[in-house]
Amino acid sequence: MDRRSFLKNSALGGTAAAATTLAAPAYAQGNRTLTLVTTWGRGLAGVHDAAQRAADTITAMSDGSLTIDLKAAGELVGAFEVFDAVTSGQADMYHGADYYFVGQHPGYAFFTSVPFGMSPQELMNWYYNGEGHDLHSELGEIFGLKSFLAGNTGPQAGGWFSKEITGPEDFQGLKFRMPGLGGQALGNMGASIQNLPGAEVYQALASGAIDGTEWIGPWADEKAGFQEITKFYYTAGMHEPGAGLSLATNLDVFNELSPAHQKIIEIAAGEAHQWNLAQFMNNNGAALERLQAGGVKVLEFPDSVWDAMGVAATETMDQYVGDELYDKIRASYNTSMAASSSWISKSEGAYRTQRDRVMGG
Amino acid sequence: MDRRSFLKNSALGGTAAAATTLAAPAYAQGNRTLTLVTTWGRGLAGVHDAAQRAADTITAMSDGSLTIDLKAAGELVGAFEVFDAVTSGQADMYHGADYYFVGQHPGYAFFTSVPFGMSPQELMNWYYNGEGHDLHSELGEIFGLKSFLAGNTGPQAGGWFSKEITGPEDFQGLKFRMPGLGGQALGNMGASIQNLPGAEVYQALASGAIDGTEWIGPWADEKAGFQEITKFYYTAGMHEPGAGLSLATNLDVFNELSPAHQKIIEIAAGEAHQWNLAQFMNNNGAALERLQAGGVKVLEFPDSVWDAMGVAATETMDQYVGDELYDKIRASYNTSMAASSSWISKSEGAYRTQRDRVMGG
Repeated sequence: MDRRSFLKNSALGGTAAAATTLAAPAYAQGNRTLTLVTTWGRGLAGVHDAAQRAADTITAMSDGSLTIDLKAAGELVGAFEVFDAVTSGQADMYHGADYYFVGQHPGYAFFTSVPFGMSPQELMNWYYNGEGHDLHSELGEIFGLKSFLAGNTGPQAGGWFSKEITGPEDFQGLKFRMPGLGGQALGNMGASIQNLPGAEVYQALASGAIDGTEWIGPWADEKAGFQEITKFYYTAGMHEPGAGLSLATNLDVFNELSPAHQKIIEIAAGEAHQWNLAQFMNNNGAALERLQAGGVKVLEFPDSVWDAMGVAATETMDQYVGDELYDKIRASYNTSMAASSSWISKSEGAYRTQRDRVMGG
Repeated sequence: MDRRSFLKNSALGGTAAAATTLAAPAYAQGNRTLTLVTTWGRGLAGVHDAAQRAADTITAMSDGSLTIDLKAAGELVGAFEVFDAVTSGQADMYHGADYYFVGQHPGYAFFTSVPFGMSPQELMNWYYNGEGHDLHSELGEIFGLKSFLAGNTGPQAGGWFSKEITGPEDFQGLKFRMPGLGGQALGNMGASIQNLPGAEVYQALASGAIDGTEWIGPWADEKAGFQEITKFYYTAGMHEPGAGLSLATNLDVFNELSPAHQKIIEIAAGEAHQWNLAQFMNNNGAALERLQAGGVKVLEFPDSVWDAMGVAATETMDQYVGDELYDKIRASYNTSMAASSSWISKSEGAYRTQRDRVMGG
């Protein structure tokens, strides 16, 4: 990644944000339709559903006075073009995983997931009661975006491999699909990392363009059909322990909406975050059983792989040190994660241990 | 509890529900104000906040066309009178913990928490992607209520005691505040259980009317001030591992609202559930440190107590077997909990173990 690119973007975006602050437009009157572009192929299990949920909820709650017109990846712009489409005003909103845009700013990684980062509950604590949302907004002001989390995949599976992984050396030269800073960490371990949108992964795996892939978890992975190609599946991974999805609106467009419409977007996004997390988490167990019954070997990485991932993840997270906003977000994120983790261990962790012991696991 | 009372109520409620089905009213026109009564004293940390969050969000998203007028416990009716107030039409909505109303129907316990029941994530899975919300609605139809979860305290602490608990015999004759089926289980262990609304607990503890109490967790308990009276605090408990709070609207009132207003209530409630859970979970860690620094002894129950709680909880849950709807809700709840728990262990559980091992706990 070219570190200058996001610094330059920052300077440009700063000017745009200042102009926005000066303007005090009257709220647009009458019914309004906003175009929502997404990083997901139409119908992609879970992730497209989160975008559709938010869109439908906004339309319904506003009684049609704010209608969301969803254009899936490729229908208006390509999956990875949504960020530029919305910041330039070509579209009004995008729904996607913000870590696709670490090239614009590495701070975006924290609003999806970073290696060895937050669980979904930890992310909720930071985003909805800690500094998370404010920092997301601060990042968005650079580029002219108003962002809210609006989906969550839950902890993601380690992924699909054509053979069993016995040690970190198995990642040497492995052509693997993994986006974000998790992918960069795997690159530090010697893998050849590709960042493909979800809709293109199956074909890349089937053609041999990649040796393996992570996608989300048993339910979404089964629907994507990776079990037709590879048979070794790792359920736990370090790369996305609770991946948030974002709904980002062009800041000028957002600022022109009425307070009621702004609130409708915020609350619809928050509700979609919870609804989508429940969708993934509720369907994974049964899907994993079906995958196993179909001949997939379900495994966990050995400790030696986790250890190497820890070293690689720290190297990855450290490479951006010196960018002021990245450092600020990272410090806030790590402090919040430590506090959340401590209480979760004492409460839910201790409870689950006793429930398993007393009532059977 | 008199088992006949809820069966009789069920029969009466059934008639009311049938009448509602026949009516097909035109949507009320113009601005509307709904009166919301709560089981919480005004300002009670976290729980009052959840009710206020939902009320403010509904008012803001509807641009004031649906204004919620919140009356805290005692302002219109007493804490435990809200259920009757809303079913009778004296008020339009209540916000509260539905396990306060196990006397109306024991099935209500599942929509707050039951002993050795679901964690917050497990409850979300069942409620938002499984059968939970539909079963809540089925229960509500008996009494003429439309209910949505609209808050969650997270896993609750075992509570406050005047001395260390060394075995199950310490519960013999103990005057303890604990509502719901958790309280009934503790009663089966020999405790003398009182079901007091939150706003009355401090005074009961200070006066010696009760020997100990559970309330919520470190943050809310610290604000309630229990550390001024007792010094032994148990962080994990069996009674409420993820307590949902409900927003229930009189069914006739709900059915007369426009689809947009109905959707606004549903989504505002869902968002309040997540927002409130993050509020509790994000504040407990720091509060626990302050309590410890102030001289509170933080402990966990010994295994012998958990074992006795397991026996008592099963007895409690079994006492309602034979009520068709209770059995139906319980079976759905237990099946969903087992599936969720299995996937959470394989994904988040395995991940957290490795994160603690590799990166430090």
